[in-house]
Amino acid sequence: MSKYDHIRLSAYNANMQLPKLNLVLFTFGNVSAADRELGVFAIKPSGVPYEDLSPEKMVIVDFDGNTIEGDLRPSSDTKTHAVLYKHWDGINGIVHTHSTYGTAWAQSQRDIPIFGTTHADHLTVDIPCAPPMNDEMIKGNYEYQTGFQIMECFEEKGLDYKEVEMVLVGNHAPFTWGKTAEKAVYNSAVLEAVAQMAYLTEQIDRSAPRLKDALIKKHYERKHGPDSYYGQ
Amino acid sequence: MSKYDHIRLSAYNANMQLPKLNLVLFTFGNVSAADRELGVFAIKPSGVPYEDLSPEKMVIVDFDGNTIEGDLRPSSDTKTHAVLYKHWDGINGIVHTHSTYGTAWAQSQRDIPIFGTTHADHLTVDIPCAPPMNDEMIKGNYEYQTGFQIMECFEEKGLDYKEVEMVLVGNHAPFTWGKTAEKAVYNSAVLEAVAQMAYLTEQIDRSAPRLKDALIKKHYERKHGPDSYYGQ
Amino acid sequence: MSKYDHIRLSAYNANMQLPKLNLVLFTFGNVSAADRELGVFAIKPSGVPYEDLSPEKMVIVDFDGNTIEGDLRPSSDTKTHAVLYKHWDGINGIVHTHSTYGTAWAQSQRDIPIFGTTHADHLTVDIPCAPPMNDEMIKGNYEYQTGFQIMECFEEKGLDYKEVEMVLVGNHAPFTWGKTAEKAVYNSAVLEAVAQMAYLTEQIDRSAPRLKDALIKKHYERKHGPDSYYGQ
Amino acid sequence: MSKYDHIRLSAYNANMQLPKLNLVLFTFGNVSAADRELGVFAIKPSGVPYEDLSPEKMVIVDFDGNTIEGDLRPSSDTKTHAVLYKHWDGINGIVHTHSTYGTAWAQSQRDIPIFGTTHADHLTVDIPCAPPMNDEMIKGNYEYQTGFQIMECFEEKGLDYKEVEMVLVGNHAPFTWGKTAEKAVYNSAVLEAVAQMAYLTEQIDRSAPRLKDALIKKHYERKHGPDSYYGQ
Repeated sequence: MSKYDHIRLSAYNANMQLPKLNLVLFTFGNVSAADRELGVFAIKPSGVPYEDLSPEKMVIVDFDGNTIEGDLRPSSDTKTHAVLYKHWDGINGIVHTHSTYGTAWAQSQRDIPIFGTTHADHLTVDIPCAPPMNDEMIKGNYEYQTGFQIMECFEEKGLDYKEVEMVLVGNHAPFTWGKTAEKAVYNSAVLEAVAQMAYLTEQIDRSAPRLKDALIKKHYERKHGPDSYYGQ
Repeated sequence: MSKYDHIRLSAYNANMQLPKLNLVLFTFGNVSAADRELGVFAIKPSGVPYEDLSPEKMVIVDFDGNTIEGDLRPSSDTKTHAVLYKHWDGINGIVHTHSTYGTAWAQSQRDIPIFGTTHADHLTVDIPCAPPMNDEMIKGNYEYQTGFQIMECFEEKGLDYKEVEMVLVGNHAPFTWGKTAEKAVYNSAVLEAVAQMAYLTEQIDRSAPRLKDALIKKHYERKHGPDSYYGQ
Repeated sequence: MSKYDHIRLSAYNANMQLPKLNLVLFTFGNVSAADRELGVFAIKPSGVPYEDLSPEKMVIVDFDGNTIEGDLRPSSDTKTHAVLYKHWDGINGIVHTHSTYGTAWAQSQRDIPIFGTTHADHLTVDIPCAPPMNDEMIKGNYEYQTGFQIMECFEEKGLDYKEVEMVLVGNHAPFTWGKTAEKAVYNSAVLEAVAQMAYLTEQIDRSAPRLKDALIKKHYERKHGPDSYYGQ
Repeated sequence: MSKYDHIRLSAYNANMQLPKLNLVLFTFGNVSAADRELGVFAIKPSGVPYEDLSPEKMVIVDFDGNTIEGDLRPSSDTKTHAVLYKHWDGINGIVHTHSTYGTAWAQSQRDIPIFGTTHADHLTVDIPCAPPMNDEMIKGNYEYQTGFQIMECFEEKGLDYKEVEMVLVGNHAPFTWGKTAEKAVYNSAVLEAVAQMAYLTEQIDRSAPRLKDALIKKHYERKHGPDSYYGQ
């Protein structure tokens, strides 16, 4: 028994969704779940296959990236999670995957254009792609800097992390987040589906136009506005 | 016990086919089943995951979009279903999905060209893509207008909804229908398969010609003409 | 008990392989199995879903296309099977599918170029695509003519049906055959895999060269020549 | 009981991973597992379907390609395995597949460019594609020469087989290896995933730049350098 059991369970359950949703090969992904009051998050141990995971194996880490409880080494991306939790206090779950289409867009260093209502149901702008960081940052505290690279991208583009819950890190792969670990996983699956549809759209028509503003606004507000009428 | 149980069951069964046929991610789709004598249809509740559905959760709605029976809020696309049922009295089932290839064609705002007999076995014309509606219509009663947008597209192109049981709504995604909810689901799967084949055909040869008239006629009549000889 | 039970079972088993190998959607495919001594073949009934099939439902047809035994109507493609059995006496199984990549190549009316050893392990030439037939033939006895269209294609290209056990019918889809129904199904799966690889090869390099003769010869003879050393 | 049982089991287990990871159709692949002290390896018998395999059916072969124990004929690619084991003494497992995307790149005779960190997590250079061998070599001892073709490619490009555990054989398909048969299978799955992502990246942007050196170095050293911090 530990006071962290609830986030261990939450992180475990969310991690186990990744292979079911075809978002990871082997161990190429990780999910964390945070408790704001305790100031910590539970995260997947590094390099452990999904079939060998259990709630007890989740590692407890604080928002500076220090391990608080757990025998295993936490995910190599732990510091990126820590930075985002520390600076974005509205999120309680973060996911990183190398999902196929999302990663291909990240490798091409392009934002994913908003082409349709599937995209607009979830966010009103192109899915941003943060540029690869400069060589000094890479050589330094890399995973830590990845967190800042993401935040800087949002600042420069004037985005709100509460409205845009996903990003591509250039040459790397997607990160997503949300109010819960479960919602963050949902966002990873949405990103991958939207990434595939945008890919196909451009293959069908290289000059396909972006979705027009009225439709973007309408679809986003159906699900997220003050008068939203989607869901129960 | 309710006099609507039969359409609840029919709508439930048809909805459950969507994930099995890989036509939906999460809750991105809905099926309804109508009873013409009772003047109502049963439709999926909004935002409820497929694994949590049951026949009792289906919502009963009339052809003006008013909820008649049921505790849950009906699908956000309910008014589109209502409009189509009200004006096209030969249909008893409607499906909406965001299936991958169908949606990509909708996002490119192109009709799906008829390239082969798989397509001609089901319809004799390109799968129509209704243009995105104008901004006034979007800001107004959006889902209601989507129904009219579909009907107007059929009118302008001179299509008969009894012969062409599918449409793409530009920038959005496919709608299909049929004499039963089951047939409408069948049509959604056919649309997705044909959309993928047409996509690949154009990638192999950007100037691939449309199917010639004699073959279109022959294949359609094998299945649908007065002398059809397909099936039992 | 019927003297045709063995080919009914063989045809049934082979038909059931199609959905397992992802080669068919719904009822878009059929397999037949022939007995040369009895001068008949067993074939899938038309339009019956795979999950409802049983060996008893297979229809017995002679090489002129006449039903000999069975309560159900045979596949609408039965006459194509009959023509091929009648004229190519070395085959005992035929498969027709609308598999995704094979059909896309058929729709683009192109032979599938031989790009690698996966292809050369099975045949030494491009997978032929028979041109769509002329309008008179289409309006006439269509499925019967499809058989002749295939044979004419082989004659014009100087191909031997015992060495090239597959063809695309232009604008339509693949047919494959073999010494047994099981081998014909195997060939359908090979055709689909080779079709996908050739598609991807051209997307990677539009001017990818065909496989050179020495490699074609070597790989084919490993599996099929007098000194073959593949298998047991 | 045989002194080779441990490598038979290891080879069997590794072979059975190939269909689970969607890396093979039918029998288009093979894995071997070596014991350096005994100077032999266990390899899949030729042309036997995966569902019929058992540890006892694995064939024991020495590093010159001679069968030492076993009733079945070993894989037709056995001599390629033998050559690599004989000359590269740091490897104990080899895999050959015709996985879809890897084979498509091999058919286009191109190295797979390093576009992102998924690739850099495993190797620091493009995945090499050995050119098709000359006609004399093909006509001679083909599978034996395939081994030398791979080694020559590594020599010419200045690659170390301990750092780059995978290759494409031009017009043919991938080979991978590793310290264990299990690791070699892992590498085959990584190659296929990286091949698909690189394919998609080029489709999105034909002039996508290769990953920059600082990121290549960082990601590789996270997993493989003296200060690696990935895994447990």
